[in-house]
Amino acid sequence: MNSRTEIAALFPATLYDFLSSGNGYKVRLALAHLQLPYRYEEVDLVRGESRTSEFLARNPVGKIPVLVLADGTVLCESNAILWWLCEDSDWMPEGRLARQRVLQWMSFEQYNHEPTVAVLRARALHPEFGTLSEAQRTDLLKRGHLALDVMEQTLSRRPFLVEDQLSIADVALYAYTHVAHQGGYDLHRYSGIRAWLARCRQGLPALRIDETPA
Amino acid sequence: MNSRTEIAALFPATLYDFLSSGNGYKVRLALAHLQLPYRYEEVDLVRGESRTSEFLARNPVGKIPVLVLADGTVLCESNAILWWLCEDSDWMPEGRLARQRVLQWMSFEQYNHEPTVAVLRARALHPEFGTLSEAQRTDLLKRGHLALDVMEQTLSRRPFLVEDQLSIADVALYAYTHVAHQGGYDLHRYSGIRAWLARCRQGLPALRIDETPA
Repeated sequence: MNSRTEIAALFPATLYDFLSSGNGYKVRLALAHLQLPYRYEEVDLVRGESRTSEFLARNPVGKIPVLVLADGTVLCESNAILWWLCEDSDWMPEGRLARQRVLQWMSFEQYNHEPTVAVLRARALHPEFGTLSEAQRTDLLKRGHLALDVMEQTLSRRPFLVEDQLSIADVALYAYTHVAHQGGYDLHRYSGIRAWLARCRQGLPALRIDETPA
Repeated sequence: MNSRTEIAALFPATLYDFLSSGNGYKVRLALAHLQLPYRYEEVDLVRGESRTSEFLARNPVGKIPVLVLADGTVLCESNAILWWLCEDSDWMPEGRLARQRVLQWMSFEQYNHEPTVAVLRARALHPEFGTLSEAQRTDLLKRGHLALDVMEQTLSRRPFLVEDQLSIADVALYAYTHVAHQGGYDLHRYSGIRAWLARCRQGLPALRIDETPA
């Protein structure tokens, strides 16, 4: 039994997710790409549903997405789920250095990109999360653009983030970058990023971030 | 040639680092464990040395640690460097699910733990970084204790974060947890974490976080 058959035996799974979340979208894209069946279960973050005792029993960190496999195994953290789903797929480049590069971009995503680019978008889409001060907003815009600057440096020189193929590193960064303008980020100044977004779209499943999976 | 021999051929390396950094300390611990030789190069964050054009040419994100291998290859992001160094060592548990768990804890570390636990400690050790408001300090204390609560839930039930052995997941979390009290976090309330810290110390090289590598 090869490892893809082993993985398939753990599905259908249940994905606990919040539709507008880029972190959740990463996992939805991977599941669609691998054609793995799952039930989509909305966790309404606006109504605090990721902080209920029921949800915290599944993931004590209180974050979506959470993927519960058919055997009850609970997988948390979007990038760690991406890795588990795709480590032997065509979305994982080969070689030790390539794996390091994938993880390097994923760390960057969780530390520099998501806490800025995703946060302003979430506040714009869901005013219920509360208002930011003008100083906070300016700071998040500035730091988010710095993160986008770093991506642009790479993507103005090469087609994808790691080697010459679409990988889970691209999926991890695509999720919030392709909707960064919704948070007030100016993507017009980044021609490398815009060309990369178009290349990603060609290789990704046709599933929008605001589209409930079938 | 096995992969450990291939890795050894890429040393001595140069580690760009800031001594009090837990992120840097993770890499120092792994290098000591694997007995890989390297030159230690201090980057004084207090004096802004991670924002110079020379440093940004190496790592555009402007963060330490950066490990430059003997062939010039530049590795960034502490957890991605840990993975690259240790993926075939006794600090990496075997199996697909175990790798997912390691990455899950590393994501947690970079998103929930480091931005709270490390930040208050850095401000305490280096007042030059600027003063936090009382509200900011209270918020960081609260969110850092929430992260420690999550660790305690796991570590009150099991000896290490992933399976029954010391792994890079433990190293990633040990780095800032063992000095969390320096930022004002109360470790006395966490008996599981304290027992785990003692177990980690038994398995880790005898190198303190404030000890310049030989």
